Amino acid sequence: MTRGNDRGVTPQSEDFSAWYNELVLRAELADRGPVRGTMVIRPYGYRIWELLQRELDDRIKATGHENAYFPLLIPQSYFTREAEHVEGFAPELAVVTHAGGEELDEPLVVRPTSEAVIGEMFSRWIDSYRDLPLLINQWANVVRWELRPRLFLRTTEFLWQEGHTAHATHEEATVETLLASEIYAEVARDVAAMPVLVGDKTERERFAGAQRTVSLEAMMRDGRALQAGTSHYLGTNFATAFNIKFTSATGVEELAHTTSWGMSSRMIGGIIMCHGDDRGLILPPKLAPIEVVIVPIGKPADIAAVLEVATDLATQLRDVGVRVKVDDREGASPGFKFNYWELRGVPLRIEIGPRDLAANVVTLANRLSGEKEQLGIDSVASGMRDRLSEFQDALYERAKGFRDEHTVTTDSYEEFTAAVAQGFALAHFCGDEACEQKIKDDTTATPRVIPFDVVAETGNCIVCGSASMFPTRVVFARAY
Amino acid sequence: MTRGNDRGVTPQSEDFSAWYNELVLRAELADRGPVRGTMVIRPYGYRIWELLQRELDDRIKATGHENAYFPLLIPQSYFTREAEHVEGFAPELAVVTHAGGEELDEPLVVRPTSEAVIGEMFSRWIDSYRDLPLLINQWANVVRWELRPRLFLRTTEFLWQEGHTAHATHEEATVETLLASEIYAEVARDVAAMPVLVGDKTERERFAGAQRTVSLEAMMRDGRALQAGTSHYLGTNFATAFNIKFTSATGVEELAHTTSWGMSSRMIGGIIMCHGDDRGLILPPKLAPIEVVIVPIGKPADIAAVLEVATDLATQLRDVGVRVKVDDREGASPGFKFNYWELRGVPLRIEIGPRDLAANVVTLANRLSGEKEQLGIDSVASGMRDRLSEFQDALYERAKGFRDEHTVTTDSYEEFTAAVAQGFALAHFCGDEACEQKIKDDTTATPRVIPFDVVAETGNCIVCGSASMFPTRVVFARAY
Repeated sequence: MTRGNDRGVTPQSEDFSAWYNELVLRAELADRGPVRGTMVIRPYGYRIWELLQRELDDRIKATGHENAYFPLLIPQSYFTREAEHVEGFAPELAVVTHAGGEELDEPLVVRPTSEAVIGEMFSRWIDSYRDLPLLINQWANVVRWELRPRLFLRTTEFLWQEGHTAHATHEEATVETLLASEIYAEVARDVAAMPVLVGDKTERERFAGAQRTVSLEAMMRDGRALQAGTSHYLGTNFATAFNIKFTSATGVEELAHTTSWGMSSRMIGGIIMCHGDDRGLILPPKLAPIEVVIVPIGKPADIAAVLEVATDLATQLRDVGVRVKVDDREGASPGFKFNYWELRGVPLRIEIGPRDLAANVVTLANRLSGEKEQLGIDSVASGMRDRLSEFQDALYERAKGFRDEHTVTTDSYEEFTAAVAQGFALAHFCGDEACEQKIKDDTTATPRVIPFDVVAETGNCIVCGSASMFPTRVVFARAY
Repeated sequence: MTRGNDRGVTPQSEDFSAWYNELVLRAELADRGPVRGTMVIRPYGYRIWELLQRELDDRIKATGHENAYFPLLIPQSYFTREAEHVEGFAPELAVVTHAGGEELDEPLVVRPTSEAVIGEMFSRWIDSYRDLPLLINQWANVVRWELRPRLFLRTTEFLWQEGHTAHATHEEATVETLLASEIYAEVARDVAAMPVLVGDKTERERFAGAQRTVSLEAMMRDGRALQAGTSHYLGTNFATAFNIKFTSATGVEELAHTTSWGMSSRMIGGIIMCHGDDRGLILPPKLAPIEVVIVPIGKPADIAAVLEVATDLATQLRDVGVRVKVDDREGASPGFKFNYWELRGVPLRIEIGPRDLAANVVTLANRLSGEKEQLGIDSVASGMRDRLSEFQDALYERAKGFRDEHTVTTDSYEEFTAAVAQGFALAHFCGDEACEQKIKDDTTATPRVIPFDVVAETGNCIVCGSASMFPTRVVFARAY
């Protein structure tokens, strides 16, 4: 890790966007690539991604999916086969026209998503109902040309997993669509400490080519929504376009029902904005590259003894499965190191000085609460996993509290516009495009989800007063 | 997994190339993608890659390297900065000329390797000697336009890791170059059960832009060599091209010395050709998606009891960390299942029938030796890790024995040409381009490595009789 900058970042309250951009760069999570809109994920940011990947991949495999890898380059003509899909993605495509020193007969699209190429392969692999369900996942990079790029949130290239499955029936494909959204919700809540609202997208907000899109929406600390993952039921749209057919048990040829679902490196942006504060990142322990940092303190004459104890403690912590680092940099003050690791969101910091050694204690500083406490040195390692677990829970509870405080249930359009200026609004909605557009024009907010886990309720549209089209209130917010 | 084909494959001895192509497809390791030269890595093949990835990634991290991710798309002009690099890669580049619906001002190259973009970022990140060494690794896809594609061996796109490091001195960069080749040799030998010769490449066979290329060469069962990984010392070539400079401890501005090194999904092709036989794959247990398959045998009246024991045994095996599968498919005969899993290279097969149950035994079949033995059912799980370890060792020894039998040390050009027709030849070589070309014209063989671990020996060139240029004999072979 290169020597960081000890300056702070612009406060969140002053300019949230500047806070975010500065933090991503200063915490060395990512850097801008040479081509506009591209991103370099630096080791500290990539390690967060690897930890998230492992948690997600384990759950994807445990539910019967297998990983595979499909080509990056897809014939351009494939994108025209599904009408909505081509309309949705055409403006964002990067196209290879020359290769091996020659112009290609047919241009190749750099995948923006892989329904097309996977649909083609599924049609080759699936013959009979015995081949179903086919449950595939891919970890890959995808390219979507972005006009207003932002690190992690909207970059020309990003990393993700994309699940693609084929089923015999509408019912089975629906169960799969919901299973994927449940996996995502579990990862968001239990791993990223990020409360999410799960529900259906309205028609206008669906994925290009989907019959149903289930989304997870999290609240950032500026009150905006961030989509943490989506799961699509594609009906037989792609099966029709790519000829994915199977012979049923009774010998009838039928179209398969397919799904696709993805979670991406965008989640890192979500974690930054869901938990960070004016001093920098706050990372959930389960995704923290370093869960505990040990800062040895002392004058040159004392430091060798302190360092020996620090190193021994680090070994004890590693033995109980804690990711720990001893910051033994010479020529950097304890204050510099405190700021350095606070900026980088390390959950817990252990300070050890000569007086601590004499008293057989250490000082433990909590990045979330800001509190410090003294601990007997012999009990540090044995209690650390529990402390990290408490930290993880407290971080989730804080995010949930923040969201609840910034969520308003209302039937007044005036209250509604005020609410979406600083968070989520739950309102009745007729589903009409004109009302959706008026809200967008007035507030820039859009319907985020028709949530699953709320009470059923009828009512009148917040804009026009017509009867609500949905079984519950709809969540509106400004979104990333 | 879809229902496979129970036909065999063309025997190796009859047509090695047909054997390979059929096996890759029939064992469902990979499939051809829609664009010529592209490949779909199917779940069974991808799982081998994941297991290899984990082994390699653990070793890369344990030696102090950190993973990061750099952009896929690189400005075309970057490739012209290092003269040899552009010459080497220009014919293989795929180029994006249009994106977001418009023609780009500057075409973008889809990375064939990442020295250029990583060099650019290193120059931004490195200021002082304190920033060195910078030890980075990336897992990524790369694209090189191939005119004669072959699944896993030469595909338009492949998966790999590429290490990129920067150092203060020639000596440190040389140590790093050798460290990477040692990691690769360990993974090849201990994980893939693949004996490798490690040594330097001759000048003509070096990576485009390298001052030194260390290569690992393995022998396939047709006697040809396959490069299992390479590690390059790039001198200050890329530091000059991308302005990677640092201020030394004494305040002098110096160029960094860089290295790069890669191992790719090509290794899967190597594993197939190093170990496979006429019945199909033979996988080293450490890379086998399924290490043990249990085939329950019995008439409909007996099968429920057999299956219960099989399932219980599978649980016991999983508990001791064995990757195991019970093949409980109905309507498929034991013979079909035996062939199916032999084709797929599962190291050990357990057969359980009603008579075995009565006698409290199982039959264990070894994919490598073809031998069967009876085991007391209670001892199966406890002894399995040792048996798999023995299998792993035996597979390595067989491959090493095969290589030794097909390696000839000679000073006669007649013997030399006969030797490279079926394996490796160790001969003295003057290093002259004309002699290298004559050997290539006569035999299609090329110098593979100047090996490290052989006795120093002077002598006269196998072609022209001039004094050898190298401290040892050089390994020649036809190569993939």
